Amino acid sequence: MAQACLPPQVLDRATNKPFVQARLADIVHALGGLLQGPGDLVLARISPLALAGSDAISFLSHARYAQELETTQAGVVIVSPESAAQLKSRPQLALIVTPEPYLYYARLSQWWAQAERLQHQEADQRAGLALSPRIHPSSVIHPQAQVAASARVGPLCVIERGAVVGEGTWLKSRVTVGERCVIGDNCILHAGVVVGADGFGFAKDGEGHWIKIEQLGAVRIGRDVEIGANTCIDRGALVDTVIEDGVKLDNLIQIGHNVHIGAHSALAGCVGVAGSATIGKHCTVGGGAVILGHLSLADSVHISASSVVTRSIGVAGHYSGFFPLDDNANWEKNAAALKQLHRLRQRILALEQAAHLSKGPPA
Amino acid sequence: MAQACLPPQVLDRATNKPFVQARLADIVHALGGLLQGPGDLVLARISPLALAGSDAISFLSHARYAQELETTQAGVVIVSPESAAQLKSRPQLALIVTPEPYLYYARLSQWWAQAERLQHQEADQRAGLALSPRIHPSSVIHPQAQVAASARVGPLCVIERGAVVGEGTWLKSRVTVGERCVIGDNCILHAGVVVGADGFGFAKDGEGHWIKIEQLGAVRIGRDVEIGANTCIDRGALVDTVIEDGVKLDNLIQIGHNVHIGAHSALAGCVGVAGSATIGKHCTVGGGAVILGHLSLADSVHISASSVVTRSIGVAGHYSGFFPLDDNANWEKNAAALKQLHRLRQRILALEQAAHLSKGPPA
Amino acid sequence: MAQACLPPQVLDRATNKPFVQARLADIVHALGGLLQGPGDLVLARISPLALAGSDAISFLSHARYAQELETTQAGVVIVSPESAAQLKSRPQLALIVTPEPYLYYARLSQWWAQAERLQHQEADQRAGLALSPRIHPSSVIHPQAQVAASARVGPLCVIERGAVVGEGTWLKSRVTVGERCVIGDNCILHAGVVVGADGFGFAKDGEGHWIKIEQLGAVRIGRDVEIGANTCIDRGALVDTVIEDGVKLDNLIQIGHNVHIGAHSALAGCVGVAGSATIGKHCTVGGGAVILGHLSLADSVHISASSVVTRSIGVAGHYSGFFPLDDNANWEKNAAALKQLHRLRQRILALEQAAHLSKGPPA
Repeated sequence: MAQACLPPQVLDRATNKPFVQARLADIVHALGGLLQGPGDLVLARISPLALAGSDAISFLSHARYAQELETTQAGVVIVSPESAAQLKSRPQLALIVTPEPYLYYARLSQWWAQAERLQHQEADQRAGLALSPRIHPSSVIHPQAQVAASARVGPLCVIERGAVVGEGTWLKSRVTVGERCVIGDNCILHAGVVVGADGFGFAKDGEGHWIKIEQLGAVRIGRDVEIGANTCIDRGALVDTVIEDGVKLDNLIQIGHNVHIGAHSALAGCVGVAGSATIGKHCTVGGGAVILGHLSLADSVHISASSVVTRSIGVAGHYSGFFPLDDNANWEKNAAALKQLHRLRQRILALEQAAHLSKGPPA
Repeated sequence: MAQACLPPQVLDRATNKPFVQARLADIVHALGGLLQGPGDLVLARISPLALAGSDAISFLSHARYAQELETTQAGVVIVSPESAAQLKSRPQLALIVTPEPYLYYARLSQWWAQAERLQHQEADQRAGLALSPRIHPSSVIHPQAQVAASARVGPLCVIERGAVVGEGTWLKSRVTVGERCVIGDNCILHAGVVVGADGFGFAKDGEGHWIKIEQLGAVRIGRDVEIGANTCIDRGALVDTVIEDGVKLDNLIQIGHNVHIGAHSALAGCVGVAGSATIGKHCTVGGGAVILGHLSLADSVHISASSVVTRSIGVAGHYSGFFPLDDNANWEKNAAALKQLHRLRQRILALEQAAHLSKGPPA
Repeated sequence: MAQACLPPQVLDRATNKPFVQARLADIVHALGGLLQGPGDLVLARISPLALAGSDAISFLSHARYAQELETTQAGVVIVSPESAAQLKSRPQLALIVTPEPYLYYARLSQWWAQAERLQHQEADQRAGLALSPRIHPSSVIHPQAQVAASARVGPLCVIERGAVVGEGTWLKSRVTVGERCVIGDNCILHAGVVVGADGFGFAKDGEGHWIKIEQLGAVRIGRDVEIGANTCIDRGALVDTVIEDGVKLDNLIQIGHNVHIGAHSALAGCVGVAGSATIGKHCTVGGGAVILGHLSLADSVHISASSVVTRSIGVAGHYSGFFPLDDNANWEKNAAALKQLHRLRQRILALEQAAHLSKGPPA
C-alpha cells in the first residue's frame, strides 16, 4: 500500500478526532479471536501497520508485510497463528490471533463504522438535531413504488412506478431506480447510480435511421449487492437484466440490457458489459475491461484489467489481453512492427522452408 | 441471445402481469404486415422465441435463429417472407409476414409501450392519483430557459439559463442541461446525463500550473437523439459541440468539447471522444473505444470495441485495434515477446540476408 | 482544430448575441501585451482564426496554424513576437503581441466569462429577477457540514456530515460530497461529481462471499482543483484519498480509495485509477488509460490514452501501450499471429542456430 507516500497530516486533521474509543476486550468479545495482550487497552482508530500509533489497531493481511510487524507502533495487531508464532522479536506487542486477519479486519471495520454511527446519533440528539430521516423528503418516490420498512433512501433519489427496494437496503443519494426494477435486501447503492435506464436497442430502417426498440424488461437485483457511484444497469429489452446475490460492482460500470451476472462476482471500476452477456458466479473482472455482448463466461473466470472479451469462455481461469506498457519510443517501434506481424510470420515460414526446418503446416 | 441462461422466474414475477391485452388484428391494423392466423388471438407480452408462451408474440430477426422457429411455443411470430416460405413443419403457427421482422418488432415495442403508458394513466385515474406532471416540480429550471410545450422534464433535473429543450423531448430524471445548450425535438435524455459541462481546456503557465480556459461555446443537439444514462457532452471552447439528428449515445460516454458527430451515428457504452474530433454520418463506435482529438472520421466508419483511433480515417470501413484475449499464461509470454518485436523483425531481416532471401528493403 | 467542419450556423444562433462588447484597449489594459492597432476597436466574441469575423479577437497558438494568419478575417489576433515579426503580408492586421499567446487566450477567456456573468446579473436585475442564490435551496446540506462564505453550491447537491467546502469553490449542480470529505479553495466540481463514495474493499470469507470493508477514510482535495462531470473519487479505507493542489480531472474518471495524485497533474476523460496508486506531480494521463493499484508514478510521467500501467514507473517520461488501429481484416491477421508470437520467437531462434547467426542467449 502507498500510505507511506501520504503526508503526515493525513491523520492529523481536526475532523479526525477519535470519535470511537474502543476497549480491546470489547472488540474481541464482539468479533472473537485469541487476545494476547491487555484487554483494557483503548483504541481510537484502525490504521495500516506502517502508519499506526499506540492508539491504533492494525492487521497483517499478507506475509509480504511481515517486516512492518517488526517496527509497527500499533497498540495491537491482528495476525494469523503462523505470523504470531514467527514473531519472536516483540514479545510485548499485543496481538489478536485469528485464522483470517483480513477477514477479521473487514468485520472490525463494520463494527467500527456502526459504533461511529451510534456516536453520531447520540451527538446529534445532545445537540438537539433531528435524526436523519430514513426516507429523505427530497427524494421523489412514486406512490406505486414499494420501499421496505427498514430501507433507507438518502437525498435526491428517484424511485419510479412499480419499483421495489428491499429490507435493509440503502440508496445513498441521487440514485435512480426505474420502473418495475427490483432491488433485493441489504444492498448498498452509491450516489449517482442509475438502475433501469433503457437498454441500447435500435433497429435500422431503410434510410439508415435508428428506430427505438422500447425496453420492456426491467432489472432484478439480488440481496447483498453493492453498486458503486455513477454505475448504470440498463433494463432488459424483453427479459430482465439480472444481478444475482452478493455481486459487487465498483464505480462507473456499464451493464447492458439482458445481462446476467452470477452470484458473488465482482467487477472493478469502468468495466463495460455489453447486452445479453452472461457472467458466471465467483467471477472477477478487472478495471476498464470490456465484455462484448451475446456471450457467456463460466463460473470462476477472472479477466485482467483493460482486457476485451470477444467470445464465450467455458473454462474457469485467468484471461488477459492488453498491450504491455512501454517507453513510448519502444512502443512506437513495436506497434509499427505489429502491423506487419502476419507478414513476418510468412517470412519466417519462407526462411524455414529455405533452411528445410519447416516440419508441418505453418503455425 | 442469452435468455436461455436466465432463470425461469424472469417471466413469473408479480409485477409482470399482462398489463396489455392486445388483439393480434389490432397489431396488424396498426403496424401492417400480412397476417397468417387468427385475428382474435390475444397477446399479453412480447417474448424471445425460446422463452415465448402461447400468450406471446415473438419474432425471427436473423436466419441463425430459424431453428427456434421449429420449436417455439409463441402464439404468433413475426417473420420475413423467406422464413415463412421455408417453414413447412408448422402450418398451424400464426405468422405476421413482413420484409423486415426486426424493424417490425421495434415498431411493435413502441406500440406496446404506448399501450402500457395509457393503461397506467387509466389505472392512476381510477385510483384517484394525480397524473405525473409534465414538468416535475422538483426540477430546477432557470426562468430564462425555454422548455417546449410538449417536452417532459422528470424529477430533479437542472436546466440552466438560456437552455432550450425541444418539442416532445423527454429528460427522464436527474439530467443537467447547461447554459445556452440546445436540445432538439423528440430526444430522450436518460438519468444522470450532463449536457454542457465545461470542456477540458487549460493553458500551462511558466510554473507548470494549469490556467483554465473558460468554455464559451455551448452544445447543440439535433432531433431524435437519445443519450444514455450518465453520459456527458461538454460545451465547446469557442464553437459549439454538435450532435446531429438521429444520433444514439449509450451510457457513460464522454464527448469532449468542440466534437461534431454526424447524423445517425451510434456510439456504444463507455466510449470516449476527445476534444475537436469529428465523426461522420452513419458511423458506429464499439463499447469502450477511444477517439483522440483533432481528427476526423469519414461517413460510415465502424470502429470495433476498445479500439483507439489515433489518426483521421478518410475511407468508410471497419477498423479495429485491441489486444486479443488469451489465457493469462499465454498472454504473458506473447506480451513479453511483443516488447521485442522490432528486434525480432531485424533478426528476420538478418536471416533473410544470410539466406539471400531478402528481395528489397525491409518491411 | 476541426472547426472548419462545423456548419456555418454555429456562430449564427439567436442566443449567441454579442452580450459582451469589449474595447480592445480595455482588454490590453486588463491583460497586458503590446497592442499594434486601434484601441477603440469593439469586439463581440473570441473565435478561432479560421472562423473569425471582424468583430472577433483570435489567437495564434501554434506555428502550424501560421498560414491561417494570412487569411483570417479576425479584428485582432494575439500572437507571439516571432509570429508578429514573420507577418509581413498584412501590415493592417491588428495584433496583441505577447510571449505566450495561448496563455493570454486562457486569461482572456476568463476575463470574457466574467464580463458575461456581470452582464447577466445586470440583465436579471433590470428584469426584476432574483439573483441566483449562492447556496441553492434545493441542495441538501448537513447541519454539521461547513461551506465557506464565498463558496457557491448549485442546485440539487448533497453535502454530508462533516464535509468542508472551501472559499471560492463552486459545486455546479447535482454534486455529492460525502462525510468528512474536504474540498479546498477555488475548486470547480461539475455536475454529477461524487466525492467520497465508499472505496471498493471486500474480504472473501470461506464461502467465497465478499465481506464489506467499511471505508473509514475520507477524501482531501487541495485548492484550484477542477473535477469533470460524473467523475468519482472514492474515500479511503483507513487513510484519505488525496488530490493535491491544481490537479485537473476530466469527466467520467474513477479514482479509487487511498489514491494520491500529486499537484498539477491532469487526467483526461474515462481514466481509471485503482486503489492505493500514487501519481506524482505534473503528470498527464490520456483518455481511457487505466492505472492499476498499489503502484507509484514518478513526477512528470506522461501516459498515452488507453494505456494500462501495471507496474511502478520511477523515471519521468512518456509511456504508451495500446494496440495500433488497423483495417479490420489486417487487424484480424495480425491479432491471430500475435497469439503465437512467443512461438515465432522460438522459430527465429531455431533459424538463427541453424544459420549460426545466434550470438547469445535468445532475446
